[in-house]
Amino acid sequence: MKLIGIDLGGTEIKGGIFDWEGELLLKKSMSTPVKEGYLGISRAIRELINQMVDETQSSYQQIKGVGVGIPGPCDQNGFVYTAVNLYWQEVPLGEALGEILELPVFIENDATIAGVAEAAKGALRGAKNGVLITIGTGIGSGFIVNGQPFSGSHGLGSELGHMIVGKADYDCNCGNNGCLETFASATALIKYAKKLIVEGKQSCLTEVTKGDLEKINGKLIFEAAKKGDEVAASAVDRMVKYLSIGIGNIITLLDPEVVAIGGGVSKAGADLINRLDKEVDKYIFFKKKKHFARILVAEMENDAGIVGGAMLARAKVSMAE
Amino acid sequence: MKLIGIDLGGTEIKGGIFDWEGELLLKKSMSTPVKEGYLGISRAIRELINQMVDETQSSYQQIKGVGVGIPGPCDQNGFVYTAVNLYWQEVPLGEALGEILELPVFIENDATIAGVAEAAKGALRGAKNGVLITIGTGIGSGFIVNGQPFSGSHGLGSELGHMIVGKADYDCNCGNNGCLETFASATALIKYAKKLIVEGKQSCLTEVTKGDLEKINGKLIFEAAKKGDEVAASAVDRMVKYLSIGIGNIITLLDPEVVAIGGGVSKAGADLINRLDKEVDKYIFFKKKKHFARILVAEMENDAGIVGGAMLARAKVSMAE
Repeated sequence: MKLIGIDLGGTEIKGGIFDWEGELLLKKSMSTPVKEGYLGISRAIRELINQMVDETQSSYQQIKGVGVGIPGPCDQNGFVYTAVNLYWQEVPLGEALGEILELPVFIENDATIAGVAEAAKGALRGAKNGVLITIGTGIGSGFIVNGQPFSGSHGLGSELGHMIVGKADYDCNCGNNGCLETFASATALIKYAKKLIVEGKQSCLTEVTKGDLEKINGKLIFEAAKKGDEVAASAVDRMVKYLSIGIGNIITLLDPEVVAIGGGVSKAGADLINRLDKEVDKYIFFKKKKHFARILVAEMENDAGIVGGAMLARAKVSMAE
Repeated sequence: MKLIGIDLGGTEIKGGIFDWEGELLLKKSMSTPVKEGYLGISRAIRELINQMVDETQSSYQQIKGVGVGIPGPCDQNGFVYTAVNLYWQEVPLGEALGEILELPVFIENDATIAGVAEAAKGALRGAKNGVLITIGTGIGSGFIVNGQPFSGSHGLGSELGHMIVGKADYDCNCGNNGCLETFASATALIKYAKKLIVEGKQSCLTEVTKGDLEKINGKLIFEAAKKGDEVAASAVDRMVKYLSIGIGNIITLLDPEVVAIGGGVSKAGADLINRLDKEVDKYIFFKKKKHFARILVAEMENDAGIVGGAMLARAKVSMAE
């Protein structure tokens, strides 16, 4: 019995073939034929699976299920509402892929899939309820609820980055004002540091980037903050504050055992986690004790998408049996 | 096979005995012997159950489970973290009640129990994922997730009233600033209207209450707003805005099929619901369509506690079998 995990991105399709226990047998990737639309992409996925089956001397009949992570929201039938990187609007991927693959196909948002991977093999292992928060240009999240991936009744939930937590300096891409990701993503961190510099605050970031503020990135800000740069430190403080509000809110709502922090910002590592761990206490409802949730760095790296896809397929196939 | 639902409040213990289908056979109540502590209260509950068993000519052996709603957070074993109205701190109610009743006992926060009642017989009927929001002095909430009551890994979740959504004029009882209930509860509505009047704004509320601002209540504000009073209208507008943010956030996170509005404020009825239904669209993440969740008035009234208790017991007993 084997499983397939597919990580469908705007530039690349990554695939992995796994045994039932979740051991990776082989991974392969190919460019995403974006121009060929969802039918062409579905055929490309079949081709990728065929190659992996051949190269591992498996048989197609051994494959019990295929889990696919996609860059956008979709419902339980794999109906994709939108996927900007693929130029998709309302695409019946689940139906198409099921017919083309002739296999049970399970499709989820890539953030949810990453949560499944953490639950199977990473920081959310063993948690009945757990939340993965991925912090990069935006903020994504994957929820594990009662041991199962959860994205709501229509697949539109678990969008922690778009929870409204205040009045923000700039509007979110989604059209709202006040989304968590406009306070606490790497993008927000950078915009805020730039804003302080443009307003006239002195910062070593100006010298480090030779005056080209477009070169400021998250890593530089974290480094400058460590060296005591005031602008960088206050940008990091603000990010920590709002991340703590976001984590506190999710504890107040879902009360998970673990909140795992992934994405580029998690590279700031133990320092950041320790600060969050302390600051979250300020924002939770139930203050009698320290908050119960453990805050950890996410463990899965590049293979999260294919591992999560395969583990999603395993969970769904097991439930159906 | 019969079920018992108990609604344990600070002044009264309400009890109901139900058949397995959830038909109420008899309800009874007694004063809560608060001074006798949790053991005395547990014995009082046994006494109340005995009376209901006798008066319905049932036998104690017919009772398959007892569901108890309590005014505070508790874990899955019925360990109550705190219950202010009962003067309880860290009380092992589940253990005590299990021994004294010699029956399977299931304990949940009363807001969650009210959600269970709505799911069984009210506005959340048929929803796989649904949220009850009770708006009165504070804001409580009960979550139904994948058809089951959900309050997190330690029973400390589903506290929507304490989700932080901005910077508030006054701190919340919980010690935080920015909790939803400090923007959108009846208390918040009243405080905001008073604030505007104290700041010098003209309002018919001053005449209606003969200058005694302490007499302003939610009902008066809604009535005045309907008549075009500016202070009242802007207080209601603000409440609608923040309630919509709260509902929008819960849609962005849990994507339920139904959000039911209960509590005193729901008496404002169809007008309020229609306004929320429109305004929530502004705050959700996925704006391609109108939000999917139906926003409805909660249907269960005084019996919600005992119905929810009995239905919780039925669900838990069924799952264990």
